[in-house]
Parts: sequence; structure tokens; C-alpha cells
Amino acid sequence: MDKKYMERYWHTSSHILAQAVKKLFPDVKLGTGPAIENGFYYDFYREEPFTPDDIEKISKGMEDIIRQNLPVEKISVSKDEAKKILKDEPFKLEILEGIKEETVTFYRQGDFIDLCEGPHISSTGEIKHFKILSTAASYWRGDETRESMQRIYGVSFPEKAQLDQYLKFLEEAKERDHRTLGPKLDLFSIHPEFGSGLIYWHPKGSIVRKIIEDFWKDVHIKNGYQIVYTPHIADLSLWERSGHTGFYKENMFTPMEMGNKVFQLKPMNCPFHIIIYNTKLRSYRDFPIRWAELGTVYRYEKQGVLHGLLRVRGFTQDDAHIFCTEEQIEEEVVKVLDLVSFFLGKFGFTEYKTFLSTRPEKYVGSPDGWEKATIALENALKKKEMGYEIDPGEGVFYGPKIDIKIRDCLKREWQCSTIQVDFNIPERFALKYTDKDGSFKTPILIHRAILGSIERFFGVLIEHYKGNFPFWLAPEQIRVLPISERHLPYAEKIGGLLEPHFRIQIDTRNEKINRKIRDAEEEKVPYIIIIGDKEEEKNTIALRKHGEGMLGTFTTDEIIRKLKECQ
Amino acid sequence: MDKKYMERYWHTSSHILAQAVKKLFPDVKLGTGPAIENGFYYDFYREEPFTPDDIEKISKGMEDIIRQNLPVEKISVSKDEAKKILKDEPFKLEILEGIKEETVTFYRQGDFIDLCEGPHISSTGEIKHFKILSTAASYWRGDETRESMQRIYGVSFPEKAQLDQYLKFLEEAKERDHRTLGPKLDLFSIHPEFGSGLIYWHPKGSIVRKIIEDFWKDVHIKNGYQIVYTPHIADLSLWERSGHTGFYKENMFTPMEMGNKVFQLKPMNCPFHIIIYNTKLRSYRDFPIRWAELGTVYRYEKQGVLHGLLRVRGFTQDDAHIFCTEEQIEEEVVKVLDLVSFFLGKFGFTEYKTFLSTRPEKYVGSPDGWEKATIALENALKKKEMGYEIDPGEGVFYGPKIDIKIRDCLKREWQCSTIQVDFNIPERFALKYTDKDGSFKTPILIHRAILGSIERFFGVLIEHYKGNFPFWLAPEQIRVLPISERHLPYAEKIGGLLEPHFRIQIDTRNEKINRKIRDAEEEKVPYIIIIGDKEEEKNTIALRKHGEGMLGTFTTDEIIRKLKECQ
Repeated sequence: MDKKYMERYWHTSSHILAQAVKKLFPDVKLGTGPAIENGFYYDFYREEPFTPDDIEKISKGMEDIIRQNLPVEKISVSKDEAKKILKDEPFKLEILEGIKEETVTFYRQGDFIDLCEGPHISSTGEIKHFKILSTAASYWRGDETRESMQRIYGVSFPEKAQLDQYLKFLEEAKERDHRTLGPKLDLFSIHPEFGSGLIYWHPKGSIVRKIIEDFWKDVHIKNGYQIVYTPHIADLSLWERSGHTGFYKENMFTPMEMGNKVFQLKPMNCPFHIIIYNTKLRSYRDFPIRWAELGTVYRYEKQGVLHGLLRVRGFTQDDAHIFCTEEQIEEEVVKVLDLVSFFLGKFGFTEYKTFLSTRPEKYVGSPDGWEKATIALENALKKKEMGYEIDPGEGVFYGPKIDIKIRDCLKREWQCSTIQVDFNIPERFALKYTDKDGSFKTPILIHRAILGSIERFFGVLIEHYKGNFPFWLAPEQIRVLPISERHLPYAEKIGGLLEPHFRIQIDTRNEKINRKIRDAEEEKVPYIIIIGDKEEEKNTIALRKHGEGMLGTFTTDEIIRKLKECQ
Repeated sequence: MDKKYMERYWHTSSHILAQAVKKLFPDVKLGTGPAIENGFYYDFYREEPFTPDDIEKISKGMEDIIRQNLPVEKISVSKDEAKKILKDEPFKLEILEGIKEETVTFYRQGDFIDLCEGPHISSTGEIKHFKILSTAASYWRGDETRESMQRIYGVSFPEKAQLDQYLKFLEEAKERDHRTLGPKLDLFSIHPEFGSGLIYWHPKGSIVRKIIEDFWKDVHIKNGYQIVYTPHIADLSLWERSGHTGFYKENMFTPMEMGNKVFQLKPMNCPFHIIIYNTKLRSYRDFPIRWAELGTVYRYEKQGVLHGLLRVRGFTQDDAHIFCTEEQIEEEVVKVLDLVSFFLGKFGFTEYKTFLSTRPEKYVGSPDGWEKATIALENALKKKEMGYEIDPGEGVFYGPKIDIKIRDCLKREWQCSTIQVDFNIPERFALKYTDKDGSFKTPILIHRAILGSIERFFGVLIEHYKGNFPFWLAPEQIRVLPISERHLPYAEKIGGLLEPHFRIQIDTRNEKINRKIRDAEEEKVPYIIIIGDKEEEKNTIALRKHGEGMLGTFTTDEIIRKLKECQ
């Protein structure tokens, strides 16, 4: 599918949706209706929510409009003229106010006209197969202090097979949705009434997080990193010094005024590591210095963009800062890339897309420094034989960077690792080191994260594994099921033997064995041990694997040996 | 020494100090001058700081006043009269304004008079041996928005031997002061310019923290706890529900307003665990539920009371909440007490003082519930044969509690573990569980912390160990010192053999061996390995222990075996 064509295709589909809604419900006020990554939506303001019946009618209305094969026309008018056209559309008027140009464009199809920059396809009849997918509440401009809107999502394709395939993908994605699986498997919860975008990790989710974090720390220490811990707040002056109050203010929570001091919740860990750096005079002998922190940061995202674990307001970065000389950049980046493939591979992600972003128009630092750093990043990518695309001019203002997106089993892409050279902070905090010749120089600072955010990565993992965590990560690895109450003592004996090695539970409930098996399967416990008369007699246990069924009868020693290999 | 007598003794000493200051510097304005735990201080307002020369003169002035053996008289006057007496003392007038009674008391000795409740000793001649210890900046009423004062600390005793002993203790305490050792050993730093009371953990401090935290988590998991992670902020409504905005407001940072939502930095972890509890219907079968979190909380302490790691604004509680039935309280508290002695013993604290605080005048919950819970706590203490004192009426309003103070090697006491029953939160959050008979009941909630705060405990540890961390905690366990550059390859070979087992460094600097040894000793590395010709020839290593000197020559295998036992 041609991406640009589909964007126009979906944009026109959203106008058809709006046209159908306005015909059926003339009092509805229009918000905006863009094409999105997959399909389109339109936001409407209406007191009563759309019922399934309404949606049915809207769908029929869209079919009519498509059948009429109305041409889609672009019209340019003056702002004054536009105001007249939009006199009954307060949200559109608000958009109009924000436009600086004196002439604006509308798109018209039949009796429907919409303030719109376009582009669109040429007629409504081009839309062959569409489906309204869902409705959701949203806020006007994603701002929770503004009007609550009703968003209708849809998708459309030229071929029926494309629509069918997409609906199948949606079905599969729905089954994997971490927002459903998370609470169902008792992994985490979110409580918008006590603050949206904040994650409560339940015991089962927390044990997975702990395993990931312990593993992360061990591997980092073995690879020459040192762990640090820093506060979650600092005096506002730190953020003025770092420049965040200037270029990052929109994403920061409001400051806390305490008497004559003002504290700021941290959106980033960097300035804290910088302060530690500056507590001592560093030498070239100390380089590379690699400081890693699982640092929880808080960024204010608009209500409308929050999405389960994937887009949150509080998240834990697997952050590290590397201080080194210019000559060391390449080798350090190679080492980070090694860590990236090691970690991502460990979780089963072997396909990824890599982007190298180069100098944008506005930047700090010297062109020469940028040039050298960009070449070092590129050489590292070449050395690792990693395919990559160059995003020219897409670097952050403070330095060039490498971004890595992973692909999950549904081929969806997730931004994950990042490696960024920073020419801004070393200057702002006057970082120095003494070089071989005794002179003071400014070190190179590299920011890097591998998993990106623990919360986000956990969300991706849940979907990637469909909740079936591999044995080493499973919150509960083995459940022991006594067939009846008289088998409980033997079950507890077996449990006692397994417990030092694995995370186990014994199902002591007075339930039928089939019910116990079904529950364990639903809770996605990787292995089930069933214990009845036969097992007790022979001093063995029957082992069942999640999703695969019975594996056979084993001694406890055999099981311990076998499963320890999976850890 | 009689504690009450010494309080009066030191209180009078502070008046003598103030009298001497006023005589020498009549323009100085008086703040307050109490007896403290050890000695006394007086706060003065004066533009220029007191010089060592001034202090010398003040000391001489105090000797004069003592020599004159002035009687100390108590005088009662009306508030109006008091105003006249204090007309030139603005800070005293401010105190006077806050007094509700119509009659106030002064204490007078010679020509010096001070607004004061007393009590005092009867004459200045009773003070036999005193010493001015130090000066420090302070804020009027500990409030950093108010005037900056100069505080002079002193101590006094009836016997010369007592003073000498106390000065020796101070000397020893100073050598152990974590505020000096922390930065010196590169363990942590504090940066008041970027926010007072916030701790930056350097790599060496962080590795100790990581070892403590990993150990803490492992032991908790083995003892039936589950780990949880919760956010650092929540909507203000959560703190209204929990009651903290009412009874805890003074200790909380100001809320962050984001549009129509208000977020609050957490001073406590409890409400978050409660929210997780309420995501499911719990049953008596699930009890006891034990949820543990290393939760970093933020409490606003006044600038004046902050003290290194011991009194901070951000700290990590080794928090846990136990949900259980009334019948389970005793057994659960016994288990917590077991953990307390296990953990404290592991760090070398074997002496502690235990307090049981009972129902205060204002309380929530039923008298019957209090009674049962208090008996359960007391029974647990008896069962563990722990000596304890009862603090009648000193329980928090929400329930009875056990507090445990540890004694370090200088016999100083530090509040550490706490076990508190809570009748407030279960009611406020309508916590429920289904009992055996199917009825809904309110669970018992127990808050508990063992180390108290990781920051504080680390501060106590630094002082207790005098920076000489035991082998299992030492940031750097072994340093390998090649005698000259030609021994470097062998040193690196030895380092490579030790590295998988221990935290080691190789001193690769081109320095004399004695300098290398001195540096390693100063940095308090527990073991030093020295490598020269002899060692290289015989394929051995010379081992030196911190503070003890040479232990002899060993093979690498012997060292690994020997030191692994110390881990």
C-alpha cells in the first residue's frame, strides 16, 4: 500500500464519516478528523453518547455517500468568508483563529464542507470497504480542562482482503492488549481517579519487573557500568541551569513552591548525574565513566495521548550516561550496540529498525564536533553491521543520535533504545577533565537507554508474549495441583522441594482438578504439576506445559534439572 | 548524671552564654537558648559573624559570670510589663505575642534578664566546667524564609572528668561523622544549591545501597513478602481520602496544579498499597498478605533540622503493609520482630531499646480493637523475650505501635524499626475481605519498616563502621597493587581471576608502592594485594588487611576460598 495514498484515503474517509454524522445529527459540532497510523477518526461534540444503533445508522449513511460517488473539491476562501461558513461550528472557529494565513482552504463533497488543509482523494466512491471500529471519549485538543468529545474510529481499504486482514490483525492485537491482560493476569493497574498515567505494579507484575531490573543491573555492572541513585526532585535552579525550563517546560509538572525555594519534579535524570560528575576533578584516566540508573521520571502528557503502559506520566528509564573523550565515542557506541542486541535478543526481539539522526538547522556545539560524533556513530553502526536509515537533520538540537525500534510478533514497531551525543549539557555545567598533557578539556557526554522505559517495555512484553511470559520471567513458574484433598500433604512435600529453585504455588482449594487446571491455564502458569494416587504411589509427578498439555511423568529431581535449564 | 538536673544545668549555662554575649556585644538581639540532648545553644542575631577571637572573649566573659556566682531568680510579670522589658528584643517580643497566658515568667541573673519558662539551677557558680563547642548558621524558628541567626553551641559539667570524657566522645564522633566520611570516601553528596535534604548516591555509596536492597528483597521474598512498586505522585484526592491533607499537611510538599487536576508528591506509600488491595475482592484464604516496597517518599522538613543522611527531605522507606485478621496480629508481629533482629544483627546492631506505645486521648477505631491489638503487640514482644518499655498514651491516633531504637558503638540511639497497627485507613478506604462464613469484614492493616529509611540507615552504618564497611558491603573489596610497572601484567592476571568473585580495582598509577598502600588504606579498602618480583616468581600474592597490616603470602585459590567465606 502506498503510504501517502492511504493517508489521503483515510482522510477522505473521515470526512465521509463526519458528513454522515451531520446528516443524521445536525446539532452535532465538529472537532477534527485526521488520518492516523491505521485508519482515521473524527471527534464530535454531542451531549448524548452515540449508541450502537446510532453507529449502525452512521455506517449506513457513509455507504450512501460512497454510493453517490461525490467529487471532493478544494476551495480557497478568505478568513472572513471562512468565519461565515463556520458560524455554527465553534471548534472549527477556534482552529480558524489560530491560522495566521489570510486565505484558508476547505474541502467539499456534496452538501458537506470542512475547514481542511487536505490532501484528499478525488471522490467518495474511491472508498470501497470501510468499517467503523470503535467509539471513545476524548478531550477537545487532548486537553482535559476542555470539552469532552466523542471520537469515532474507522478504517477503510480499496480491497476487501485488506480490510479482512486488518480486522484479523485487530482481533489478534485485542487479545494481546496489555490493558486487558495486565489487570486480568493481576500484573498492574491504573487508577485515573487518583491520577491518570501512573502505574501501580501488583505483586505479579512487580516480580517480573524485579527480574528484569536485577538482570539489567547485573549485566551493566559486568559491562563496566556503575549504578547511581538520584532524587526525584531538585531546586528549580537546576532545571534553569540545564535549560529544561526553557526547551522542555511543556512536558514538566508545575513547580512546588516552598517558602522562598521552588522544587521541580524531574522529567530527566541527566542533570543529577552531571552534579555527581562535578563533585570531583576527573582525569582522562577515569574515562570512560559509565553511570547507570533506573531513574523514575515524570512528564506531563496530555490526557488524550495516555495509553496503558505505553504512554504514561511516570516511568522508569533504564538510563545511563557515558563520559568519555572524542576518540572513545565510536568504541563506546559499539559497546552500547552490543548491549542493545544482547538485551533485546534476550527478550525475543531480533528484528529492529535503526535510525541515525543528523544535525538539524538549529543546534548547539561546533560543526566540527557534530561531524566527528556523527561519523563515530555511523562507524559504530557499520562495525556492528547493523542496517540503518539516515534521518537527515532529525537529530536533537544538542547532538546526533541513534534510535532503535523493535518489531514485535505482530510486526508493530516500538521505539526502544536510544544513543545520543550531547554537546549542550557539558557546556552548560562547565564539565571538565584533565587530559594527558595536564590541560582542561570538555568531555563528551553520551545519553543512552536500552529498554527505554521499564513501564513501556513491560507493556510491549505483555503484548509480544500475549501474557505467556517465558519461564525465567513468569511471575508464577509452576503450580502444583493435588487432585483431591488427600493428596495435599504429598503436594506440599513436592512444593517444598521445588520452592528453593522456582516460584511456585500450590492450589489448595477444594475444587475439581479440571477447574484447577483451567484456572492455571487461564493464569498462564508455564508448568502445572498434577498429583494423584498414581504419582504418590510411585513417588513421581505428572508435568503439564501451558498450551501444550501433558509432558509425562517425572521424578522431582528430573523436573528440577529440566526446568533449571529454562531459567 | 540526673537527666532533669542536667537539663536545668545546661539551660542556665545557655543564659550565662547569652549574658556574656550581651555584655560584650550590646547590639546583638537574642533568639532562643535551650538545653539540648548534650549541652546547650543560644541563637543570636548579629550582622557580622562571631570570630574565633570573639568566642575566646565570650568564653572569658562566661568564666567571670560563673566566678561571680550570681543567684538565678524567677520573676513573674504581666504581659504588658514583659513588653516593656523586651522592647529592644524583637525576637523575644515575637515569642511573647504567641503566649496566651496573661502572666509570663523571666529568669534573672545579675544584670541579665531573659523571657523563660525555666526551670534553672539556683546560681551561676554551680557551673564548674564548660566549653564553647562550635558556631553555626541557623534560621529564626528554623524557617529559611526568616532571619539568619548565629548559633553558639556549648556544653558544661559539674566534674572535669565528665567534660573530658564528653570532649573525647565528640572527637570520636567527629571522626565517624558521615557528613565528612561520605564525601571523603566518595559515597554520596548533598547539594543545597540544588535543593537541601536531597541525597546524590555516588557509585561507591550506590553499590552498598544495592547490596543492602538486594539482600532486603531476597530475605523478604523468602519470608513470604511480595514486592510492589507504586508511583511517587497521586491526585490530591487520594490524600484527601487517606486524611493526609488534614493531619499531615505540614510535612507535605505543595501540590502541583495541572489544569483542573492537582498532583501531590507522596509523603507515604500506604495509600498506594491500599489501592492495589482494593483492585480485587480478597478472602481470608489470601491472608496474611504482605506487600513490601522500597518506596521513596518526600517530606518537607525545615532547613534547620536537616542533618546529612539522618534528617532529609527525600528518603526510601523499607516499607511493608500486612493485611490480616485480628487473630493473626500476634503471629505476624512475632515474624516482623524476627526479621528485625535478623536484619539489625546482620549489620552488627545487637543492642536495642524497644517501646510499646498505647492509646492516646484522641484516637480512631474502637476501644476493644485497640485493646486486642495492644495485647497482641505486647504478647509478641513477650514471646520474643524482648525487653520493652511502655509509652502510655504515646501511640499514633490510628493505632498502637512498637518502636525500636538501635545503639551504635558510641552508644548513641537511632530510631529504626517500627510496627504500627492502623485502624484509620481500612475504614477510610472501606477495605474488606470475605471471611469463612461468607460475610464481609474489615482487615487489620499493619505498617512496618525495619531499617526505617535507607538513607538514614546508611548514615548510621557509616558512623557505626567508621567507614570501614564489612567485607560483604565494602564498595571496593580488594585492591591489587603492582609494585612497579613491570608487575602490571601479573597484577592484571590476578585481577582477572578475582573479578568474578569480588569487587576489585587494580592501581595502575605510576606511583611508589607506599603511596599506593597509603591511598588504599585511606579509602578503607578491606584487603590489599601486593605484587612484586617475589610474588610473580612464586606465582603467589601478598595479602594485607586494612588496619591490621600484612597477613602473609597466599595462592590465588587460597585467597578466593578464604575471602568468599567473608562475603
